[in-house]
Amino acid sequence: MLLCDVGNTFLHFYHDGKIWKEKPSILSKKKENVPIYYISVNERSERCLLASHTYCVNVGEYIEIKSEYKGLGVDRKAACNAIDEGVIIDAGSAITIDVMQEGIHLGGYIMPGLNAYKKMCAEISPTLDKNIETGVNLSALPHNTTDALSFGAIKSIILMIKHTSQTKKLYFTGGDGKFFARFFENAIYDNTLVFKGMQKALQKHI
Amino acid sequence: MLLCDVGNTFLHFYHDGKIWKEKPSILSKKKENVPIYYISVNERSERCLLASHTYCVNVGEYIEIKSEYKGLGVDRKAACNAIDEGVIIDAGSAITIDVMQEGIHLGGYIMPGLNAYKKMCAEISPTLDKNIETGVNLSALPHNTTDALSFGAIKSIILMIKHTSQTKKLYFTGGDGKFFARFFENAIYDNTLVFKGMQKALQKHI
Repeated sequence: MLLCDVGNTFLHFYHDGKIWKEKPSILSKKKENVPIYYISVNERSERCLLASHTYCVNVGEYIEIKSEYKGLGVDRKAACNAIDEGVIIDAGSAITIDVMQEGIHLGGYIMPGLNAYKKMCAEISPTLDKNIETGVNLSALPHNTTDALSFGAIKSIILMIKHTSQTKKLYFTGGDGKFFARFFENAIYDNTLVFKGMQKALQKHI
Repeated sequence: MLLCDVGNTFLHFYHDGKIWKEKPSILSKKKENVPIYYISVNERSERCLLASHTYCVNVGEYIEIKSEYKGLGVDRKAACNAIDEGVIIDAGSAITIDVMQEGIHLGGYIMPGLNAYKKMCAEISPTLDKNIETGVNLSALPHNTTDALSFGAIKSIILMIKHTSQTKKLYFTGGDGKFFARFFENAIYDNTLVFKGMQKALQKHI
């Protein structure tokens, strides 16, 4: 089964336990008779997928989770659908943090991804146009601009996740998920979380 | 004495205990024979000031604080110069958090300002193009996109400041300083902090 998660930057594919990402503008050819079951949070990239392959099935509607949240992104729904109990952190262009308890979505929030922090700071002032240094010392107050920006971005995200998790198990996914997972003891990194949620929903419908 | 703090968005003026801000493109005429003592973190806006008034004195060099920090912005230097002991939070386009102890600057870090969070999220995806809702409930997990973004931005800034302050006194300044100060018991809001630091430095040199 070929699955696709159409995100804001990349299209992420899943097939036979393997995952890979492709840019919307240069999608590889897939076998014509194989259906691509997909979800999408980005219309433009979705159009690229539909133009590149005739047999695509949007399975967004199949993913239903119990939640009072209005407007929960379909990728967040999918990742949450894979986990009954715990905190799900999808660290991509944006970082979404969602809490699941006994199969119910209690709510969640959104922070900018690390790349967005970098861009944002560069836009405020040219003197703040620095890379985020992932190796920054988070235990000592910074003594230069690069460290000051990196410390502000990384530590604020970590403190928020710590504050939300308490004793709950943490499930990290997304491009920066592996990086953030290492700051927590009770963390699992699983870059197939969204696809697991899609599969779970598909099994009910197909 | 007429003071000016040239920031990235506005020029902030101080005279006789009064403060006001002006846009760099539409600066009001000042009395010609009155010197404007100024500091600047933005070259373009500084040029606007110099073009609008002949008698300007850059006092950036006069402000010296003991610090190992390389490249500390002159506005941060000025605000820190006003305080011997405590945490100084300047919440403007960017939010800077600096720690002073016995007249020595121990270090500091930078986070995006609330407006920058809004812009940053809008750039990630049109569905994240929402205003930051300052009245968001910070005690309950959000149930919609506006709250999710507001919660992520505001709470992460508050948690970082709490983590840094411990028992230290907090001094807030800048456009959003008043808003953030109300979340802390040991907080003072003083929108003249930068000017106090400038005055203290000037008293030594003039």
